[in-house]
Amino acid sequence: MQESQIVLEPLYSLKNTFKGNLQQIDSLILDNVSGNDPLIKTIATTLISAGGKRLRPLLCLASSHLVGQASQNTFYLAAAVELIHAATLLHDDVVDDSYLRRGRETANVSWGNKPSILVGDFLFARAFELMVKTGNIRYLDILATASAKISEGEVTQLRCIKSLNISVDEYLKIIEYKTSTLFAAACQTGALSAGASEEKSYKLGEFGKYFGLMYQILDDVLDYEGESRGKLKGDDFREGKVTFPILFAYQADTDKNFWHMCFNGTENTDENFQAVLERLNRFDAFSHSIAIAKLYGLEAQKILKQFKSPIIEMLDSLIESFLNQKIF
Amino acid sequence: MQESQIVLEPLYSLKNTFKGNLQQIDSLILDNVSGNDPLIKTIATTLISAGGKRLRPLLCLASSHLVGQASQNTFYLAAAVELIHAATLLHDDVVDDSYLRRGRETANVSWGNKPSILVGDFLFARAFELMVKTGNIRYLDILATASAKISEGEVTQLRCIKSLNISVDEYLKIIEYKTSTLFAAACQTGALSAGASEEKSYKLGEFGKYFGLMYQILDDVLDYEGESRGKLKGDDFREGKVTFPILFAYQADTDKNFWHMCFNGTENTDENFQAVLERLNRFDAFSHSIAIAKLYGLEAQKILKQFKSPIIEMLDSLIESFLNQKIF
Repeated sequence: MQESQIVLEPLYSLKNTFKGNLQQIDSLILDNVSGNDPLIKTIATTLISAGGKRLRPLLCLASSHLVGQASQNTFYLAAAVELIHAATLLHDDVVDDSYLRRGRETANVSWGNKPSILVGDFLFARAFELMVKTGNIRYLDILATASAKISEGEVTQLRCIKSLNISVDEYLKIIEYKTSTLFAAACQTGALSAGASEEKSYKLGEFGKYFGLMYQILDDVLDYEGESRGKLKGDDFREGKVTFPILFAYQADTDKNFWHMCFNGTENTDENFQAVLERLNRFDAFSHSIAIAKLYGLEAQKILKQFKSPIIEMLDSLIESFLNQKIF
Repeated sequence: MQESQIVLEPLYSLKNTFKGNLQQIDSLILDNVSGNDPLIKTIATTLISAGGKRLRPLLCLASSHLVGQASQNTFYLAAAVELIHAATLLHDDVVDDSYLRRGRETANVSWGNKPSILVGDFLFARAFELMVKTGNIRYLDILATASAKISEGEVTQLRCIKSLNISVDEYLKIIEYKTSTLFAAACQTGALSAGASEEKSYKLGEFGKYFGLMYQILDDVLDYEGESRGKLKGDDFREGKVTFPILFAYQADTDKNFWHMCFNGTENTDENFQAVLERLNRFDAFSHSIAIAKLYGLEAQKILKQFKSPIIEMLDSLIESFLNQKIF
């Protein structure tokens, strides 16, 4: 077995378990990304076909299987959640001026900001059309609220760009809103679609929330440490995003000026990025951040223990793999 | 009575008739444009409070009264429709690089493109949250489909920028999708919310569609002819949008080079704008366009005749006022 296969094993196991279901979901996604306009089809299929882990549909599916069995509605919801995710990626890449995503040039680079904005809107609307197909307004309730929170989190993040004095609570709220909310909604609606009670589904929503918090904190670490995950290293630094690693180092460092120069001035240069990396390591900023991510992972695992299913072990391993930074 | 009051009379009469209802809708809109993030509140309230005709909520309300009486759901829907409209305005102004809207600097100029994109997303999600409050998925069905069409129309418009060879059908499809669809959905859901049958509501949806087509064609004319309607004259020309007036003049003019120079080159200068105006007049492009708008207005009026209500007369006058270009 090659190394790349070993490290991705828990994700592959899960995907393999739900292979048939995931294929149905992928068909639903691809059927829904093409409008009559050829430009929509080109942009949306390029993004969707570039891969991505399909983590949110997978967790939606897994949640349904934890409490019963996936239904046609689970597939609609899993596809809708991935479309919402794809819509936010298109808009985020415009907002962040990103130029690499899933190992490819971003849509805003290939086709410009304007189509990216409009195709994002299209995918978002299509997600709601898919939800309507379930015939159950409860799902729309959960996912409309989640969608509003995602944009709210993104706005707050934008407003707090370069704010070294952002509080831990503010940072946590940003990542909960912009990332966790959709994971939570995926799991909660997934469980509901398999006939689970509101109470049980809420619990799995909490599982998704903690999973999402862990995921985003690790993602923020990998933005400084990670290699070849399809995005550019140091994007957050160049954009002036203040994340956990920065919060830890800034708080510990007596030389505040250095940080203000990097974040409040125009000194977010490549040279300073190296200096930032050195300080992040010096002040254990990564290990502190990962420690918090582990706490959230543990919370997610605690919730899993309340369920009985062979999938639990796979989800446990998936969490461990993320925490060991083997999957990204 | 001052002139400004005379020319706006049909709109005022309608607004006055539904004064109480419109106040409730405005409260719903304003309550829903503020998230926890102060930047969202500032941007959204500035846009919403800047006015606008509230034409879509008004037609939603009017449709409900044509078939029965407005309900709480009518108010939710009317507010949701205006929020979708506001979301598209924020995104369109980014896509079109506009800098004047409702007589004020656009949000993208005041706060930048990034917050405009994200606050647009927020308003769109909030619109769906409002629809969920109706408890009736049929409304979400109609408005999710309409929303997908709006972005599809916008993408096609973008793709056809500078295409002087765009066909009449393509142009009509663009304006139907980007503009008419929301008018249609406003009227159709408004009627449904007052307890009308699917058949009757569909008819009022058709009324909305024709009203919207008339409205957009007149708006495209006013982009060349209009004065002080809160937007800049010649925006379409500068952006290379090929609308009815251009289609007519281009088809009639033997000097195709002039048009290619303006639309395919970089010669969309102020000087050429004057030359374009001269040619549009020379080839009766405005009167041809208005003639078509009148046909659509007539279709809308024909549908109204099938209903019995004192409001019909007011809606008739409203259509006449638009056609006489007294309201914009």
